[in-house]
Amino acid sequence: MARIVQKFGGTSVANIERIKAAAQSVKREVDNGHQVAVVVSAMAGVTNQLVAYVDEISNLYDAREYDVVVSTGEQVTAGLLALELQNLGINARSWLGWQIPIQTNNAHGKARIENIERGELVNRLEQGEVVVVPGFQGLGPDNRVTTLGRGGSDTSAVALAAALDADQCDIYTDVDGIYTSDPRIVAKARKLEKITYEEMLEMASVGAKVLQTRAVEVAMNHGVRIQVLSSFSNEPGTLVVNEDEIVEKELVSGIAYSRDEAKITLVRVPDKPGVAASIFGPLADASINVDMIVQNVSAESGATDLTFTVTSADLERAVSVLESKRGELDYAELISDSNVVKISVIGIGMRSHAGVALKMFQTLADKGINIQVISTSEIKVSVLIEEEYTELAVRALHSAYGLDEE
Amino acid sequence: MARIVQKFGGTSVANIERIKAAAQSVKREVDNGHQVAVVVSAMAGVTNQLVAYVDEISNLYDAREYDVVVSTGEQVTAGLLALELQNLGINARSWLGWQIPIQTNNAHGKARIENIERGELVNRLEQGEVVVVPGFQGLGPDNRVTTLGRGGSDTSAVALAAALDADQCDIYTDVDGIYTSDPRIVAKARKLEKITYEEMLEMASVGAKVLQTRAVEVAMNHGVRIQVLSSFSNEPGTLVVNEDEIVEKELVSGIAYSRDEAKITLVRVPDKPGVAASIFGPLADASINVDMIVQNVSAESGATDLTFTVTSADLERAVSVLESKRGELDYAELISDSNVVKISVIGIGMRSHAGVALKMFQTLADKGINIQVISTSEIKVSVLIEEEYTELAVRALHSAYGLDEE
Repeated sequence: MARIVQKFGGTSVANIERIKAAAQSVKREVDNGHQVAVVVSAMAGVTNQLVAYVDEISNLYDAREYDVVVSTGEQVTAGLLALELQNLGINARSWLGWQIPIQTNNAHGKARIENIERGELVNRLEQGEVVVVPGFQGLGPDNRVTTLGRGGSDTSAVALAAALDADQCDIYTDVDGIYTSDPRIVAKARKLEKITYEEMLEMASVGAKVLQTRAVEVAMNHGVRIQVLSSFSNEPGTLVVNEDEIVEKELVSGIAYSRDEAKITLVRVPDKPGVAASIFGPLADASINVDMIVQNVSAESGATDLTFTVTSADLERAVSVLESKRGELDYAELISDSNVVKISVIGIGMRSHAGVALKMFQTLADKGINIQVISTSEIKVSVLIEEEYTELAVRALHSAYGLDEE
Repeated sequence: MARIVQKFGGTSVANIERIKAAAQSVKREVDNGHQVAVVVSAMAGVTNQLVAYVDEISNLYDAREYDVVVSTGEQVTAGLLALELQNLGINARSWLGWQIPIQTNNAHGKARIENIERGELVNRLEQGEVVVVPGFQGLGPDNRVTTLGRGGSDTSAVALAAALDADQCDIYTDVDGIYTSDPRIVAKARKLEKITYEEMLEMASVGAKVLQTRAVEVAMNHGVRIQVLSSFSNEPGTLVVNEDEIVEKELVSGIAYSRDEAKITLVRVPDKPGVAASIFGPLADASINVDMIVQNVSAESGATDLTFTVTSADLERAVSVLESKRGELDYAELISDSNVVKISVIGIGMRSHAGVALKMFQTLADKGINIQVISTSEIKVSVLIEEEYTELAVRALHSAYGLDEE
């Protein structure tokens, strides 16, 4: 007998038919003798509609009332799933964020879970009751409803699994696992049986949107085993686990790409102490996140070229911030380019193996692809290249690292 | 300075545009220096959608989870209205049923309010804050969400007004007051300036759906002055008040009708003790409400004819219950007729004036309308007639009692 948290995302509870299918998944685990807690998202489209209502009223809204409005979608699903489980003869009951309570900090609209009162839930689980919890919501120190930010239901599920000492947290979604690369681009992409938290974090940060980053962080901190699997099939998915659980570590686990990048080059910036701070300070003040940064070695002229990337969505604002500071920053020219893609090779194995980056550069060179910017972390190498080479680069790297399915 | 509860029904908060209009109504009262608590319904159609979801899952649902699902509609409106009030520069905050709390009994799906904790709300009102409360919902003794039954937001508003010692409870709706009769039938119907609780109860019981019966009862018990008015105009509406407040009592306040009636006659029922109980007992067991009852004086045969009315919706079930008991009840024939209408003359003044019923019978006789069944209460006379005479009868009575607008 195990204790399991099952989480069903928006497409897995999109309508009554899908809610009934989710209930069948819960029933299977109950029939297997497991204790089951369920976390649900809002039915597909509901949260968007609620957010649209708020936006229609005001762009500068009070996050406390925003939370009151947008938290209702998950509440509806929780009640409906409990009803369907009862239909199936299962003793089930919904538990809202304020009832448990799921205590968060006071950051309405993007709150963080601080504590989950497990006592009553554990009692119920031990009596064989299925507890159904709406994701995304909690209770703030002001005794008001809070929400965790979009996609927060993954985090709810993992935090609940941690609080309940659950053996596993199954995240049901519309894909059947984590792949070595995007199967829409790489026909030979393989579903991974297991992946480490660290790799999953790197994958998420470069555009693999299957799991919310925060949820992976919480899972890593509390050692919660996550399984990502499809609610449309009964196949096992991919386990996201601690490194210890993976006996045969692969050198590289996946090739990811993100088109959501833009490059800015400041030409002939004065090469003197403090110049980087004077450039990135104003960008940070405008809440613009800078990713890759490259500064060339200074030539004798006392000036250097500085290149960095931001998300495409931030490009326009970043350019306007930098142009407004031109007098101060004293650069010769600002060149921006959104016609780029970031390609990343990710693998926990590269910590103990040299040559991973080299193989990447060589593979791209062999295909005649020019690398514009490089950045590395302990388990990731990312390069920025021209966007039109995306598919070519991803497929070539997938083969080069031996990831292709036989 | 007064303390006012404003309640906005479904059509008054049907969409964002109407929510903005409701906020303007609140602002007017705030600008007049009043303390304002607001109770809101769900946006038009939302509750029906939520109920449909529940029905799609099961007809035999757990009322506790039903409440979790259907209470969300009002929560959304409360948050949105608070946001729009803030837009208008008003200090406003939503308060959910569990936060206040609005304590109810444990009858999920049709709970009754038992107590409203007024302390924090009064504090806020006295600090000039507008408190926005979702109608229809409360907190049961099991610490779970309860709902008051369809239309319960009127009751929420009146109960809140009672708890807050409010000077008035303004019910904003899509009609601009209580009329002497249905203006769709009687062109000369007049809007009443005032009406007593008792009359309003009788009106509601015969089909004037403007106010929920339970809300009027609570108002009567706690002496809450209600105003029914339109959210589509700025005209004063109709006050529902204690008899004392009405100096010039009219003999008759209104003529109501209900087409939602059906008549059943049991021919030649044995005329012996206990027979009425043996007929109405099984109907009560089937939750069928019997309204008007007439039993003819027994002829020498030892048998009598018994006629009574039920709602049209219950007719089929009532007939089937009675036919299944035919052996036991020993009647000769069962005749049912849904081609009838109940016409009621209502007026608190008739308590002290004779001849009101007589005038009704005479007026109908003058028009050649046959009366099938009669029932009376202290302030109401109702008759059952053939449905096709509805308009003729209502107009004739409206004139006969001097209610026509000049």
